[in-house]
Amino acid sequence: MSGAGSRPHVVEVEVRYAETDQMGRAHHGVYVVWCELGRTMLMREHGVSYAEMERSGVLLPVTGLEIEYRAAAYYEERVQIRTKVLAVRSRSVTFGYEVRGPGDRLLARARTDLACIDREGRTRRLPDDVRAALAAAESCR
Amino acid sequence: MSGAGSRPHVVEVEVRYAETDQMGRAHHGVYVVWCELGRTMLMREHGVSYAEMERSGVLLPVTGLEIEYRAAAYYEERVQIRTKVLAVRSRSVTFGYEVRGPGDRLLARARTDLACIDREGRTRRLPDDVRAALAAAESCR
Amino acid sequence: MSGAGSRPHVVEVEVRYAETDQMGRAHHGVYVVWCELGRTMLMREHGVSYAEMERSGVLLPVTGLEIEYRAAAYYEERVQIRTKVLAVRSRSVTFGYEVRGPGDRLLARARTDLACIDREGRTRRLPDDVRAALAAAESCR
Amino acid sequence: MSGAGSRPHVVEVEVRYAETDQMGRAHHGVYVVWCELGRTMLMREHGVSYAEMERSGVLLPVTGLEIEYRAAAYYEERVQIRTKVLAVRSRSVTFGYEVRGPGDRLLARARTDLACIDREGRTRRLPDDVRAALAAAESCR
Repeated sequence: MSGAGSRPHVVEVEVRYAETDQMGRAHHGVYVVWCELGRTMLMREHGVSYAEMERSGVLLPVTGLEIEYRAAAYYEERVQIRTKVLAVRSRSVTFGYEVRGPGDRLLARARTDLACIDREGRTRRLPDDVRAALAAAESCR
Repeated sequence: MSGAGSRPHVVEVEVRYAETDQMGRAHHGVYVVWCELGRTMLMREHGVSYAEMERSGVLLPVTGLEIEYRAAAYYEERVQIRTKVLAVRSRSVTFGYEVRGPGDRLLARARTDLACIDREGRTRRLPDDVRAALAAAESCR
Repeated sequence: MSGAGSRPHVVEVEVRYAETDQMGRAHHGVYVVWCELGRTMLMREHGVSYAEMERSGVLLPVTGLEIEYRAAAYYEERVQIRTKVLAVRSRSVTFGYEVRGPGDRLLARARTDLACIDREGRTRRLPDDVRAALAAAESCR
Repeated sequence: MSGAGSRPHVVEVEVRYAETDQMGRAHHGVYVVWCELGRTMLMREHGVSYAEMERSGVLLPVTGLEIEYRAAAYYEERVQIRTKVLAVRSRSVTFGYEVRGPGDRLLARARTDLACIDREGRTRRLPDDVRAALAAAESCR
Protein backbone atom coordinates (compact mmCIF):
# COMPACT_ATOMS: atom_id res chain seq x y z
CA MET A 1 0.00 0.00 0.00
CA SER A 2 1.49 3.30 -1.07
CA GLY A 3 1.86 6.21 1.34
CA ALA A 4 1.15 8.59 -1.54
CA GLY A 5 -2.41 9.24 -0.44
CA SER A 6 -1.82 9.20 3.29
CA ARG A 7 -2.05 12.18 5.62
CA PRO A 8 1.39 13.69 6.27
CA HIS A 9 2.90 14.40 9.64
CA VAL A 10 3.35 18.17 9.95
CA VAL A 11 5.99 20.02 11.93
CA GLU A 12 6.70 23.71 11.76
CA VAL A 13 10.09 25.37 12.13
CA GLU A 14 11.22 28.92 11.82
CA VAL A 15 14.17 29.79 9.62
CA ARG A 16 17.05 30.63 11.97
CA TYR A 17 19.54 33.39 11.26
CA ALA A 18 22.42 30.91 11.36
CA GLU A 19 20.66 28.92 8.64
CA THR A 20 20.79 31.75 6.13
CA ASP A 21 23.63 32.26 3.67
CA GLN A 22 24.87 35.31 1.85
CA MET A 23 22.24 34.89 -0.86
CA GLY A 24 19.89 35.92 1.97
CA ARG A 25 17.96 32.67 2.05
CA ALA A 26 17.99 29.44 4.02
CA HIS A 27 21.02 27.49 2.78
CA HIS A 28 20.01 24.47 0.70
CA GLY A 29 21.77 22.16 3.14
CA VAL A 30 19.36 23.13 5.92
CA TYR A 31 16.52 21.28 4.20
CA VAL A 32 18.36 18.04 4.97
CA VAL A 33 18.13 18.87 8.67
CA TRP A 34 14.47 19.85 8.38
CA CYS A 35 13.62 16.54 6.70
CA GLU A 36 15.44 14.68 9.47
CA LEU A 37 13.35 16.59 11.99
CA GLY A 38 10.19 15.69 10.08
CA ARG A 39 10.84 11.96 9.97
CA THR A 40 12.04 11.59 13.57
CA MET A 41 8.95 13.48 14.77
CA LEU A 42 6.68 11.35 12.56
CA MET A 43 8.24 8.26 14.14
CA ARG A 44 7.77 9.64 17.63
CA GLU A 45 4.12 10.44 16.92
CA HIS A 46 3.75 6.76 16.07
CA GLY A 47 5.41 5.66 19.28
CA VAL A 48 9.01 5.18 18.17
CA SER A 49 11.67 7.18 19.97
CA TYR A 50 14.63 7.48 17.67
CA ALA A 51 16.87 8.06 20.67
CA GLU A 52 15.75 4.85 22.40
CA MET A 53 15.99 2.86 19.19
CA GLU A 54 19.62 3.92 18.86
CA ARG A 55 20.37 3.06 22.47
CA SER A 56 19.06 -0.46 21.75
CA GLY A 57 21.59 -0.76 18.92
CA VAL A 58 19.36 -0.14 15.91
CA LEU A 59 20.58 2.61 13.59
CA LEU A 60 18.86 4.14 10.57
CA PRO A 61 21.44 5.96 8.45
CA VAL A 62 20.35 7.76 5.29
CA THR A 63 21.42 5.87 2.17
CA GLY A 64 19.77 8.06 -0.43
CA LEU A 65 18.60 11.64 -0.62
CA GLU A 66 16.83 13.67 -3.28
CA ILE A 67 15.67 17.25 -3.00
CA GLU A 68 13.99 19.39 -5.61
CA TYR A 69 14.07 23.07 -4.65
CA ARG A 70 11.21 25.21 -5.92
CA ALA A 71 11.36 28.47 -4.00
CA ALA A 72 13.51 30.07 -1.33
CA ALA A 73 12.84 30.27 2.40
CA TYR A 74 13.77 33.44 4.23
CA TYR A 75 14.89 34.33 7.73
CA GLU A 76 12.08 34.48 10.31
CA GLU A 77 9.64 32.73 7.98
CA ARG A 78 7.69 29.79 9.35
CA VAL A 79 8.17 26.66 7.30
CA GLN A 80 6.11 23.47 7.41
CA ILE A 81 7.69 20.07 6.87
CA ARG A 82 5.09 17.52 5.79
CA THR A 83 6.44 14.01 6.05
CA LYS A 84 5.07 10.70 4.85
CA VAL A 85 6.25 7.14 4.88
CA LEU A 86 6.34 6.22 1.20
CA ALA A 87 7.41 2.60 1.60
CA VAL A 88 8.48 0.37 4.45
CA ARG A 89 10.41 -2.82 3.73
CA SER A 90 12.03 -5.43 5.96
CA ARG A 91 15.39 -3.63 6.11
CA SER A 92 14.73 -0.14 4.86
CA VAL A 93 12.21 2.66 4.71
CA THR A 94 11.56 5.56 2.36
CA PHE A 95 10.17 8.90 3.48
CA GLY A 96 8.73 11.68 1.32
CA TYR A 97 8.59 15.36 2.25
CA GLU A 98 7.06 18.60 1.20
CA VAL A 99 8.48 21.81 2.58
CA ARG A 100 5.93 24.63 2.50
CA GLY A 101 6.40 28.32 3.28
CA PRO A 102 4.00 31.17 4.08
CA GLY A 103 0.71 30.93 2.19
CA ASP A 104 1.25 27.22 1.67
CA ARG A 105 3.83 27.94 -1.02
CA LEU A 106 5.77 24.85 -2.08
CA LEU A 107 9.46 25.37 -1.31
CA ALA A 108 10.81 21.88 -1.88
CA ARG A 109 9.98 18.23 -2.32
CA ALA A 110 12.32 15.59 -0.95
CA ARG A 111 12.76 11.89 -0.51
CA THR A 112 15.13 9.93 1.73
CA ASP A 113 15.96 6.23 1.88
CA LEU A 114 17.16 4.82 5.18
CA ALA A 115 18.64 1.41 5.87
CA CYS A 116 18.44 -0.46 9.14
CA ILE A 117 21.86 -1.48 10.51
CA ASP A 118 23.34 -2.66 13.78
CA ARG A 119 26.22 -1.03 15.69
CA GLU A 120 28.75 -2.95 13.59
CA GLY A 121 27.26 -1.54 10.40
CA ARG A 122 25.59 -4.75 9.19
CA THR A 123 22.14 -4.44 7.66
CA ARG A 124 19.46 -6.01 9.82
CA ARG A 125 15.68 -6.26 9.85
CA LEU A 126 13.72 -3.36 11.26
CA PRO A 127 12.52 -4.28 14.77
CA ASP A 128 8.89 -5.42 14.63
CA ASP A 129 7.57 -2.47 16.62
CA VAL A 130 9.42 0.05 14.45
CA ARG A 131 8.17 -1.61 11.29
CA ALA A 132 4.62 -1.70 12.60
CA ALA A 133 4.78 1.98 13.54
CA LEU A 134 6.11 2.92 10.10
CA ALA A 135 3.45 0.80 8.40
CA ALA A 136 0.78 2.51 10.48
CA ALA A 137 2.16 5.91 9.46
CA GLU A 138 2.21 4.80 5.84
CA SER A 139 -1.45 3.95 5.77
CA CYS A 140 -2.75 6.68 8.07
CA ARG A 141 -5.34 9.00 6.57
CA MET B 1 29.10 16.37 -24.91
CA SER B 2 29.05 14.58 -21.60
CA GLY B 3 31.47 15.33 -18.79
CA ALA B 4 31.32 11.69 -17.77
CA GLY B 5 34.78 10.93 -19.11
CA SER B 6 36.45 14.13 -18.04
CA ARG B 7 39.06 14.48 -15.32
CA PRO B 8 37.50 15.60 -12.05
CA HIS B 9 38.57 18.52 -9.91
CA VAL B 10 39.84 17.16 -6.60
CA VAL B 11 39.74 18.85 -3.22
CA GLU B 12 40.51 17.24 0.09
CA VAL B 13 38.87 18.02 3.41
CA GLU B 14 39.19 16.53 6.83
CA VAL B 15 36.10 15.48 8.76
CA ARG B 16 35.64 18.04 11.55
CA TYR B 17 34.45 17.10 15.00
CA ALA B 18 31.48 19.43 14.69
CA GLU B 19 30.47 17.55 11.54
CA THR B 20 30.01 14.25 13.35
CA ASP B 21 26.73 13.12 14.87
CA GLN B 22 25.92 10.68 17.64
CA MET B 23 26.15 7.72 15.26
CA GLY B 24 29.87 8.60 15.32
CA ARG B 25 30.10 9.49 11.65
CA ALA B 26 29.99 12.60 9.50
CA HIS B 27 26.35 13.67 9.41
CA HIS B 28 24.76 13.06 6.00
CA GLY B 29 23.98 16.76 5.66
CA VAL B 30 27.69 17.61 5.62
CA TYR B 31 28.10 16.06 2.18
CA VAL B 32 25.98 18.89 0.81
CA VAL B 33 28.56 21.36 2.10
CA TRP B 34 31.45 19.29 0.73
CA CYS B 35 29.87 19.21 -2.73
CA GLU B 36 29.41 22.97 -2.59
CA LEU B 37 33.09 23.30 -1.75
CA GLY B 38 33.98 21.01 -4.66
CA ARG B 39 32.04 22.94 -7.27
CA THR B 40 33.08 26.42 -6.14
CA MET B 41 36.73 25.33 -6.16
CA LEU B 42 36.32 23.72 -9.59
CA MET B 43 34.93 27.03 -10.83
CA ARG B 44 37.77 28.97 -9.30
CA GLU B 45 40.33 26.67 -10.90
CA HIS B 46 38.72 27.59 -14.20
CA GLY B 47 38.94 31.29 -13.50
CA VAL B 48 35.49 31.99 -12.04
CA SER B 49 35.30 33.48 -8.57
CA TYR B 50 31.94 32.60 -7.11
CA ALA B 51 32.25 35.57 -4.75
CA GLU B 52 32.83 38.04 -7.59
CA MET B 53 30.09 36.51 -9.71
CA GLU B 54 27.65 37.11 -6.86
CA ARG B 55 28.82 40.69 -6.39
CA SER B 56 28.05 41.29 -10.08
CA GLY B 57 24.47 40.12 -9.44
CA VAL B 58 24.63 36.59 -10.85
CA LEU B 59 23.45 33.88 -8.44
CA LEU B 60 23.56 30.12 -8.83
CA PRO B 61 21.15 28.53 -6.34
CA VAL B 62 20.84 24.76 -6.19
CA THR B 63 17.56 23.57 -7.71
CA GLY B 64 18.11 19.84 -7.45
CA LEU B 65 20.22 17.56 -5.29
CA GLU B 66 20.76 13.81 -5.23
CA ILE B 67 23.11 11.90 -2.97
CA GLU B 68 23.65 8.18 -2.76
CA TYR B 69 25.54 7.24 0.41
CA ARG B 70 27.69 4.12 0.24
CA ALA B 71 29.92 4.17 3.32
CA ALA B 72 30.45 6.36 6.36
CA ALA B 73 33.15 8.98 6.91
CA TYR B 74 34.70 9.30 10.34
CA TYR B 75 36.20 12.09 12.39
CA GLU B 76 39.78 13.02 11.44
CA GLU B 77 39.58 11.07 8.18
CA ARG B 78 40.67 12.81 5.04
CA VAL B 79 38.01 12.83 2.38
CA GLN B 80 38.34 13.66 -1.31
CA ILE B 81 35.62 15.44 -3.23
CA ARG B 82 35.94 14.79 -6.96
CA THR B 83 33.79 17.17 -8.95
CA LYS B 84 32.86 17.26 -12.61
CA VAL B 85 30.68 19.42 -14.78
CA LEU B 86 28.16 16.97 -16.20
CA ALA B 87 26.25 19.40 -18.39
CA VAL B 88 26.25 23.12 -18.97
CA ARG B 89 23.23 24.78 -20.56
CA SER B 90 22.33 28.40 -21.28
CA ARG B 91 20.62 28.94 -17.91
CA SER B 92 21.71 26.04 -15.75
CA VAL B 93 24.54 23.65 -14.98
CA THR B 94 24.77 20.16 -13.52
CA PHE B 95 27.68 18.95 -11.42
CA GLY B 96 28.55 15.38 -10.48
CA TYR B 97 30.57 14.31 -7.43
CA GLU B 98 32.30 11.36 -5.93
CA VAL B 99 33.27 11.48 -2.29
CA ARG B 100 36.14 9.13 -1.49
CA GLY B 101 37.62 8.17 1.86
CA PRO B 102 40.90 6.57 2.93
CA GLY B 103 42.16 3.94 0.49
CA ASP B 104 40.07 5.47 -2.27
CA ARG B 105 36.92 3.96 -0.76
CA LEU B 106 33.73 5.31 -2.35
CA LEU B 107 31.67 7.08 0.31
CA ALA B 108 29.05 8.78 -1.82
CA ARG B 109 28.02 9.85 -5.28
CA ALA B 110 26.11 13.05 -5.78
CA ARG B 111 24.63 15.33 -8.38
CA THR B 112 23.44 18.93 -8.15
CA ASP B 113 21.53 21.12 -10.59
CA LEU B 114 22.01 24.86 -10.36
CA ALA B 115 20.01 27.58 -12.09
CA CYS B 116 21.32 30.99 -13.00
CA ILE B 117 19.22 33.85 -11.60
CA ASP B 118 19.54 37.58 -11.03
CA ARG B 119 19.13 39.39 -7.72
CA GLU B 120 15.37 39.58 -8.23
CA GLY B 121 15.19 35.83 -8.60
CA ARG B 122 14.50 35.74 -12.35
CA THR B 123 16.29 33.09 -14.39
CA ARG B 124 18.88 34.54 -16.72
CA ARG B 125 21.57 33.27 -19.06
CA LEU B 126 24.89 32.28 -17.58
CA PRO B 127 27.42 35.05 -18.28
CA ASP B 128 29.58 34.11 -21.28
CA ASP B 129 32.78 33.82 -19.26
CA VAL B 130 31.14 31.59 -16.65
CA ARG B 131 29.61 29.40 -19.32
CA ALA B 132 32.93 29.14 -21.16
CA ALA B 133 34.74 28.21 -17.94
CA LEU B 134 32.17 25.52 -17.13
CA ALA B 135 32.34 24.18 -20.69
CA ALA B 136 36.13 24.02 -20.42
CA ALA B 137 35.80 22.11 -17.14
CA GLU B 138 33.28 19.79 -18.72
CA SER B 139 35.62 18.76 -21.50
CA CYS B 140 38.91 18.80 -19.59
CA ARG B 141 40.81 15.54 -19.56
CA MET C 1 19.75 49.98 35.34
CA SER C 2 20.62 46.32 35.29
CA GLY C 3 18.44 43.69 33.61
CA ALA C 4 19.58 41.17 36.22
CA GLY C 5 16.27 41.17 38.01
CA SER C 6 14.03 41.33 34.97
CA ARG C 7 11.83 38.53 33.67
CA PRO C 8 13.52 36.62 30.86
CA HIS C 9 12.08 35.90 27.46
CA VAL C 10 11.68 32.14 27.14
CA VAL C 11 11.84 30.06 23.98
CA GLU C 12 11.97 26.30 23.80
CA VAL C 13 13.82 24.24 21.23
CA GLU C 14 14.35 20.54 20.84
CA VAL C 15 17.86 19.18 20.32
CA ARG C 16 18.06 18.10 16.67
CA TYR C 17 19.92 15.00 15.55
CA ALA C 18 22.16 17.08 13.29
CA GLU C 19 23.14 19.14 16.35
CA THR C 20 24.64 16.16 18.18
CA ASP C 21 28.29 15.15 17.91
CA GLN C 22 30.04 11.86 18.48
CA MET C 23 30.21 12.48 22.23
CA GLY C 24 26.44 11.93 21.98
CA ARG C 25 25.47 15.41 23.11
CA ALA C 26 24.51 18.70 21.52
CA HIS C 27 27.74 20.17 20.13
CA HIS C 28 28.93 23.16 22.14
CA GLY C 29 28.72 25.37 19.04
CA VAL C 30 24.94 24.88 18.87
CA TYR C 31 24.45 26.99 21.99
CA VAL C 32 25.60 29.99 19.97
CA VAL C 33 22.70 29.41 17.58
CA TRP C 34 20.25 28.91 20.44
CA CYS C 35 21.28 32.21 22.03
CA GLU C 36 20.82 33.95 18.69
CA LEU C 37 17.34 32.49 18.51
CA GLY C 38 16.63 33.68 22.04
CA ARG C 39 17.66 37.28 21.45
CA THR C 40 15.96 37.68 18.05
CA MET C 41 12.73 36.30 19.52
CA LEU C 42 13.02 38.57 22.54
CA MET C 43 13.37 41.51 20.16
CA ARG C 44 10.37 40.41 18.14
CA GLU C 45 8.27 40.07 21.27
CA HIS C 46 9.10 43.71 21.93
CA GLY C 47 8.09 44.76 18.43
CA VAL C 48 11.44 44.70 16.63
CA SER C 49 11.75 42.47 13.59
CA TYR C 50 15.39 41.65 13.12
CA ALA C 51 14.71 40.92 9.45
CA GLU C 52 13.14 44.35 8.86
CA MET C 53 15.84 46.12 10.83
CA GLU C 54 18.44 44.57 8.54
CA ARG C 55 16.51 45.54 5.43
CA SER C 56 16.58 49.14 6.67
CA GLY C 57 20.38 48.94 6.83
CA VAL C 58 20.90 48.47 10.55
CA LEU C 59 23.03 45.45 11.48
CA LEU C 60 23.79 43.99 14.91
CA PRO C 61 26.85 41.73 14.67
CA VAL C 62 28.09 39.94 17.75
CA THR C 63 31.30 41.48 19.07
CA GLY C 64 31.71 39.38 22.18
CA LEU C 65 30.56 35.99 23.35
CA GLU C 66 30.97 34.08 26.58
CA ILE C 67 29.51 30.70 27.41
CA GLU C 68 29.93 28.66 30.55
CA TYR C 69 28.81 25.06 30.03
CA ARG C 70 27.47 23.25 33.08
CA ALA C 71 25.77 20.09 31.80
CA ALA C 72 25.15 18.39 28.49
CA ALA C 73 21.99 18.46 26.35
CA TYR C 74 20.92 15.30 24.58
CA TYR C 75 19.10 14.48 21.39
CA GLU C 76 15.30 14.86 21.59
CA GLU C 77 15.51 16.78 24.86
CA ARG C 78 13.59 20.01 25.12
CA VAL C 79 15.77 22.93 26.05
CA GLN C 80 14.71 26.38 27.24
CA ILE C 81 16.62 29.50 26.31
CA ARG C 82 15.92 32.31 28.78
CA THR C 83 17.13 35.62 27.44
CA LYS C 84 17.47 39.00 29.07
CA VAL C 85 18.74 42.38 28.01
CA LEU C 86 21.54 43.08 30.47
CA ALA C 87 22.47 46.54 29.21
CA VAL C 88 21.47 48.76 26.34
CA ARG C 89 23.74 51.60 25.31
CA SER C 90 23.62 54.11 22.46
CA ARG C 91 25.59 51.91 20.06
CA SER C 92 25.58 48.45 21.59
CA VAL C 93 23.55 46.01 23.64
CA THR C 94 24.40 43.10 25.92
CA PHE C 95 22.21 40.04 26.30
CA GLY C 96 22.38 37.36 28.99
CA TYR C 97 21.14 33.79 28.65
CA GLU C 98 20.41 30.72 30.67
CA VAL C 99 19.98 27.44 28.87
CA ARG C 100 17.91 24.98 30.88
CA GLY C 101 17.20 21.31 30.21
CA PRO C 102 14.58 18.85 31.51
CA GLY C 103 13.67 19.41 35.15
CA ASP C 104 14.92 22.99 34.93
CA ARG C 105 18.52 21.79 35.02
CA LEU C 106 21.04 24.53 34.23
CA LEU C 107 22.96 23.57 31.09
CA ALA C 108 24.74 26.82 30.34
CA ARG C 109 24.97 30.51 31.03
CA ALA C 110 25.96 32.89 28.26
CA ARG C 111 26.44 36.53 27.43
CA THR C 112 26.75 38.29 24.08
CA ASP C 113 27.69 41.84 23.17
CA LEU C 114 26.36 43.25 19.94
CA ALA C 115 27.35 46.46 18.19
CA CYS C 116 25.13 48.50 15.94
CA ILE C 117 26.65 49.15 12.51
CA ASP C 118 25.50 50.31 9.09
CA ARG C 119 25.92 48.43 5.81
CA GLU C 120 29.41 49.88 5.37
CA GLY C 121 30.45 48.49 8.74
CA ARG C 122 30.58 51.82 10.60
CA THR C 123 29.24 51.90 14.13
CA ARG C 124 26.07 53.92 14.44
CA ARG C 125 23.46 54.67 17.08
CA LEU C 126 20.74 52.14 17.66
CA PRO C 127 17.53 53.40 16.01
CA ASP C 128 15.27 54.99 18.62
CA ASP C 129 12.55 52.36 18.31
CA VAL C 130 15.05 49.50 18.67
CA ARG C 131 16.65 51.13 21.67
CA ALA C 132 13.27 51.77 23.27
CA ALA C 133 12.23 48.15 22.70
CA LEU C 134 15.47 46.86 24.21
CA ALA C 135 15.12 49.22 27.17
CA ALA C 136 11.57 47.97 27.71
CA ALA C 137 12.81 44.39 27.63
CA GLU C 138 15.57 45.28 30.07
CA SER C 139 13.19 46.60 32.67
CA CYS C 140 10.29 44.19 32.13
CA ARG C 141 9.26 42.18 35.16
CA MET D 1 54.47 28.58 33.17
CA SER D 2 52.31 30.57 30.81
CA GLY D 3 51.88 29.66 27.15
CA ALA D 4 51.53 33.35 26.36
CA GLY D 5 54.98 33.57 24.80
CA SER D 6 54.95 30.23 23.05
CA ARG D 7 54.80 29.67 19.31
CA PRO D 8 51.24 28.95 18.18
CA HIS D 9 50.08 26.04 16.10
CA VAL D 10 48.79 27.39 12.78
CA VAL D 11 46.09 25.92 10.57
CA GLU D 12 44.47 27.59 7.62
CA VAL D 13 40.89 27.22 6.50
CA GLU D 14 38.86 28.84 3.79
CA VAL D 15 35.51 30.40 4.57
CA ARG D 16 32.88 28.09 3.08
CA TYR D 17 29.71 29.36 1.44
CA ALA D 18 27.58 27.42 3.91
CA GLU D 19 29.37 29.25 6.73
CA THR D 20 28.18 32.68 5.59
CA ASP D 21 24.98 34.31 6.80
CA GLN D 22 22.79 36.98 5.30
CA MET D 23 25.03 39.73 6.66
CA GLY D 24 27.43 38.38 4.01
CA ARG D 25 30.09 37.27 6.47
CA ALA D 26 31.13 34.09 8.22
CA HIS D 27 28.53 33.50 10.94
CA HIS D 28 29.94 34.13 14.42
CA GLY D 29 29.16 30.53 15.41
CA VAL D 30 31.64 29.22 12.85
CA TYR D 31 34.56 30.52 14.89
CA VAL D 32 33.71 27.93 17.53
CA VAL D 33 34.25 25.21 14.92
CA TRP D 34 37.49 26.80 13.72
CA CYS D 35 38.87 26.90 17.26
CA GLU D 36 37.95 23.24 17.70
CA LEU D 37 39.86 22.48 14.52
CA GLY D 38 42.85 24.45 15.79
CA ARG D 39 43.11 22.68 19.11
CA THR D 40 42.56 19.15 17.79
CA MET D 41 45.25 19.75 15.15
CA LEU D 42 47.61 21.20 17.75
CA MET D 43 47.10 18.05 19.81
CA ARG D 44 47.73 15.83 16.81
CA GLU D 45 50.92 17.70 15.99
CA HIS D 46 52.04 16.82 19.49
CA GLY D 47 51.19 13.16 19.06
CA VAL D 48 47.69 13.00 20.53
CA SER D 49 44.90 11.73 18.30
CA TYR D 50 41.66 13.12 19.61
CA ALA D 51 39.80 10.26 17.91
CA GLU D 52 41.91 7.59 19.62
CA MET D 53 41.71 9.35 22.97
CA GLU D 54 37.92 9.24 22.75
CA ARG D 55 37.93 5.57 21.78
CA SER D 56 39.93 4.90 24.95
CA GLY D 57 37.16 6.55 26.98
CA VAL D 58 38.73 9.93 27.65
CA LEU D 59 36.56 12.89 26.63
CA LEU D 60 37.40 16.59 26.62
CA PRO D 61 34.19 18.62 26.49
CA VAL D 62 34.35 22.40 26.40
CA THR D 63 33.33 23.93 29.73
CA GLY D 64 34.02 27.56 28.93
CA LEU D 65 34.24 29.67 25.81
CA GLU D 66 35.07 33.30 25.18
CA ILE D 67 35.33 35.00 21.82
CA GLU D 68 36.06 38.63 21.07
CA TYR D 69 35.21 39.49 17.46
CA ARG D 70 37.25 42.27 15.87
CA ALA D 71 36.58 42.10 12.14
CA ALA D 72 34.51 40.03 9.75
CA ALA D 73 35.64 37.10 7.60
CA TYR D 74 34.23 36.79 4.11
CA TYR D 75 33.44 33.92 1.76
CA GLU D 76 36.47 32.49 -0.06
CA GLU D 77 38.90 34.25 2.26
CA ARG D 78 41.66 32.23 3.79
CA VAL D 79 41.71 32.41 7.55
CA GLN D 80 44.46 31.34 9.94
CA ILE D 81 43.70 29.83 13.32
CA ARG D 82 46.67 30.22 15.66
CA THR D 83 46.27 28.05 18.71
CA LYS D 84 48.21 27.88 21.95
CA VAL D 85 47.96 25.93 25.15
CA LEU D 86 47.57 28.61 27.80
CA ALA D 87 47.47 26.34 30.82
CA VAL D 88 47.40 22.62 31.45
CA ARG D 89 46.21 21.30 34.79
CA SER D 90 45.61 17.78 36.13
CA ARG D 91 41.98 17.66 35.00
CA SER D 92 41.58 20.51 32.56
CA VAL D 93 43.29 22.53 29.89
CA THR D 94 42.88 26.05 28.50
CA PHE D 95 43.57 26.96 24.90
CA GLY D 96 43.97 30.44 23.41
CA TYR D 97 43.33 31.38 19.79
CA GLU D 98 43.86 34.15 17.33
CA VAL D 99 41.92 34.11 14.10
CA ARG D 100 43.66 36.10 11.38
CA GLY D 101 42.43 37.02 7.92
CA PRO D 102 44.14 38.25 4.75
CA GLY D 103 47.08 40.55 5.42
CA ASP D 104 47.39 39.15 8.92
CA ARG D 105 44.37 41.14 10.03
CA LEU D 106 43.10 40.16 13.48
CA LEU D 107 39.55 38.84 13.17
CA ALA D 108 39.04 37.37 16.60
CA ARG D 109 40.64 36.26 19.84
CA ALA D 110 39.24 33.31 21.72
CA ARG D 111 39.78 31.10 24.74
CA THR D 112 38.32 27.72 25.61
CA ASP D 113 38.44 25.68 28.80
CA LEU D 114 38.11 21.91 28.49
CA ALA D 115 37.60 19.39 31.27
CA CYS D 116 38.72 15.79 31.18
CA ILE D 117 35.89 13.33 31.85
CA ASP D 118 35.21 9.61 31.42
CA ARG D 119 32.33 8.06 29.50
CA GLU D 120 30.07 8.32 32.54
CA GLY D 121 30.69 12.06 32.73
CA ARG D 122 32.90 12.01 35.84
CA THR D 123 35.92 14.30 35.85
CA ARG D 124 39.18 12.40 35.72
CA ARG D 125 42.87 13.17 35.39
CA LEU D 126 44.25 13.81 31.94
CA PRO D 127 46.13 10.70 30.79
CA ASP D 128 49.87 11.17 31.31
CA ASP D 129 50.72 11.15 27.61
CA VAL D 130 48.02 13.71 26.83
CA ARG D 131 49.16 15.94 29.65
CA ALA D 132 52.78 15.65 28.57
CA ALA D 133 51.87 16.52 24.98
CA LEU D 134 49.87 19.55 26.09
CA ALA D 135 52.69 20.67 28.38
CA ALA D 136 55.14 20.35 25.49
CA ALA D 137 52.83 22.45 23.31
CA GLU D 138 52.53 25.01 26.09
CA SER D 139 56.24 25.58 26.31
CA CYS D 140 57.16 25.22 22.65
CA ARG D 141 58.88 28.20 21.09
